[in-house]
Amino acid sequence: MRTQVCIIGGGPSGLLLSQLLDRAGIASVVLERQSRDRVLSRIRAGVLEYGSVGLLERAGVAERAHAEGLPHTGTYLAVQNEGFRIDFDALIGKRVMVYGQTEVTRDLYDARDRAGGTVIHGVAGTALHDLDTTAPFVTYTLDGTGHRIDCDFVAGCDGFHGPSRQAIPKDVLTEYERVYPFGWLGVLSETPPVSHELIYANHPRGFALASMRNANLSRYYIQAPVDDPLDKWTDAAFWDELRRRLPLDAADTLITGPSIEKSIAPLRSYVADPMRWGRLFLVGDAAHIVPPTGAKGLNLALSDVHYLHAGLVAHYADGSDAGLDAYSATALRRVWNAIRFSWWFTTTMHRFPGQTPFDQAIQDAELRHLQGSSTAQANLAENYVGLPY
Amino acid sequence: MRTQVCIIGGGPSGLLLSQLLDRAGIASVVLERQSRDRVLSRIRAGVLEYGSVGLLERAGVAERAHAEGLPHTGTYLAVQNEGFRIDFDALIGKRVMVYGQTEVTRDLYDARDRAGGTVIHGVAGTALHDLDTTAPFVTYTLDGTGHRIDCDFVAGCDGFHGPSRQAIPKDVLTEYERVYPFGWLGVLSETPPVSHELIYANHPRGFALASMRNANLSRYYIQAPVDDPLDKWTDAAFWDELRRRLPLDAADTLITGPSIEKSIAPLRSYVADPMRWGRLFLVGDAAHIVPPTGAKGLNLALSDVHYLHAGLVAHYADGSDAGLDAYSATALRRVWNAIRFSWWFTTTMHRFPGQTPFDQAIQDAELRHLQGSSTAQANLAENYVGLPY
Repeated sequence: MRTQVCIIGGGPSGLLLSQLLDRAGIASVVLERQSRDRVLSRIRAGVLEYGSVGLLERAGVAERAHAEGLPHTGTYLAVQNEGFRIDFDALIGKRVMVYGQTEVTRDLYDARDRAGGTVIHGVAGTALHDLDTTAPFVTYTLDGTGHRIDCDFVAGCDGFHGPSRQAIPKDVLTEYERVYPFGWLGVLSETPPVSHELIYANHPRGFALASMRNANLSRYYIQAPVDDPLDKWTDAAFWDELRRRLPLDAADTLITGPSIEKSIAPLRSYVADPMRWGRLFLVGDAAHIVPPTGAKGLNLALSDVHYLHAGLVAHYADGSDAGLDAYSATALRRVWNAIRFSWWFTTTMHRFPGQTPFDQAIQDAELRHLQGSSTAQANLAENYVGLPY
Repeated sequence: MRTQVCIIGGGPSGLLLSQLLDRAGIASVVLERQSRDRVLSRIRAGVLEYGSVGLLERAGVAERAHAEGLPHTGTYLAVQNEGFRIDFDALIGKRVMVYGQTEVTRDLYDARDRAGGTVIHGVAGTALHDLDTTAPFVTYTLDGTGHRIDCDFVAGCDGFHGPSRQAIPKDVLTEYERVYPFGWLGVLSETPPVSHELIYANHPRGFALASMRNANLSRYYIQAPVDDPLDKWTDAAFWDELRRRLPLDAADTLITGPSIEKSIAPLRSYVADPMRWGRLFLVGDAAHIVPPTGAKGLNLALSDVHYLHAGLVAHYADGSDAGLDAYSATALRRVWNAIRFSWWFTTTMHRFPGQTPFDQAIQDAELRHLQGSSTAQANLAENYVGLPY
């Protein structure tokens, strides 16, 4: 088989890239290891930046997001059970949208279906070849049969553990990493959210986040040791601990129910540089990981798609490779800013093992300054709703 | 002898407190260990916050500062030999004033002289007594003779090593501290400053600061190991190293000359809480130390004086102790914010031993974000020119 752009990975970034390229008349094939149902069962992020919504609009896949998504004009931060609000709309005239990654992915699948796009599920042994030539190709097996796709470019949208980044020679890549000494214990429950906006809580017992996917699907997190056995966290133990860390008014009105998903996720920051090698372009988690604080992961993947799609369109339409040549530097500039923001937000909102009284006092001072300074709030708001592309 | 407020320490905060109390008809005596000439030979900070200038005006000692001080409407930050400007005036409509601590002290001595204030120099063995009663007193010797001052209140303006903080029982005091793993090698030279505004430079070889006291007195610093032998740093070696770290245009136009002062100072953050014990009130360095990055030390001492003076005036004029009772909490709120700011500014501008590539990339991202975001610049500017009292 031959296509113009071979896209490894059928998550939201791979599908969005395929969709945007299609609208510009550029052919692509998407290869996905999992089944479609499996992809759509992943519980992931739920907050779309201002610019991410705009990008989905340009791809023609924002209709349901606008109908069913929850626009959030602010968020709450809490310190020791007392909250204060950051009003994005009043501070900078922008907002975010709560709309689950699963829903974004579903909308993109539907759009690819309507357009007759090729998404091949269940591929195994995907390997990238001749990336440093003008004739790269990708091989994989499907139901035991070997296949080969020849293409002009390969887009690695296959996440942190996918084959794309690993196809780049080790000596070409510089890797940056910080592993945080805690995890997030997350629970999904079919209950009305305790707050109509997110609550990020810094508490002596650890961080907590009250979030949601929709009006009857709540997503809550508490900071916990990453190696805590899950069976230690009965639903009752989780709700008790969450209640202790939330602002008092939220704790009082929290509606609990059985968890329909429960897991502990590690937190880390990771960046691979460059994000391009020859004809391969890395997108999203394949190149960078952020801790979930501030919900930058999906949004960064989408902004990578924005830059890569623009570069590919310029290549095919105008014969200009300026966008593709600048892709890595351009994408990384925005990536590093989000890495910085989510590092700062994580550092400010969590309790760290070994934190000195001085460190703790600095954290308190940072949060008090945020509470009192509209300029500091505007700075947070600009980064939270997302810097312009 | 008897007075209303016994002030330990004849530096700028002790003198200013005495001056402000005098203008409100409250008697005080200032005790200073050193001679007046010795106090006036100290080379210290040189940047006055917006509010500090206002406080000197209210004390009637700002005339020469306005005539000879240099209003600075912005400052430069530099990364790897390229500078960018933070325009305080355009961002927030405020400015700072470069006017040496030595000059502030001189103006205050002159004012105390004119008012016939009592400043006793050369005292030894100063000790504070009965602070937890309503009749505290201070003893000291002068030229071998013992003296005693009875008073209503004691103001500890005697710096980090003075007797005041040490008079507070250990179990009453909580201390917070961070020691930074480097020092500032400073040089004073009678040369025109390389820039009409300060330049804070982050460079792979370490931090540098180009500062000044007046149009023909330059003050330069470079980050250096705190245990570096001073004789390693010949004038030539200092100028060479400074040149390497400054923005290229500044390095090219740097005018050098013999150093008239050269020393290495350690950097640390320190806070003692509470700042009041019984009838004793700690002011300035007696209670808190900041690293010099951002020049908060003198300004914090002056804001302490503002709160303490207001509390004492209310006590004597209205019989209200609300201000005195709130002094420690009120002063510490502002102190912690400046501690936070100078910690952040120090952390962002210096190279740390053991810094990982991730840490370094975060620092680069922070500075690039500052360069590109007027909101982040306004946040810096508000803290740099000083938060309101």
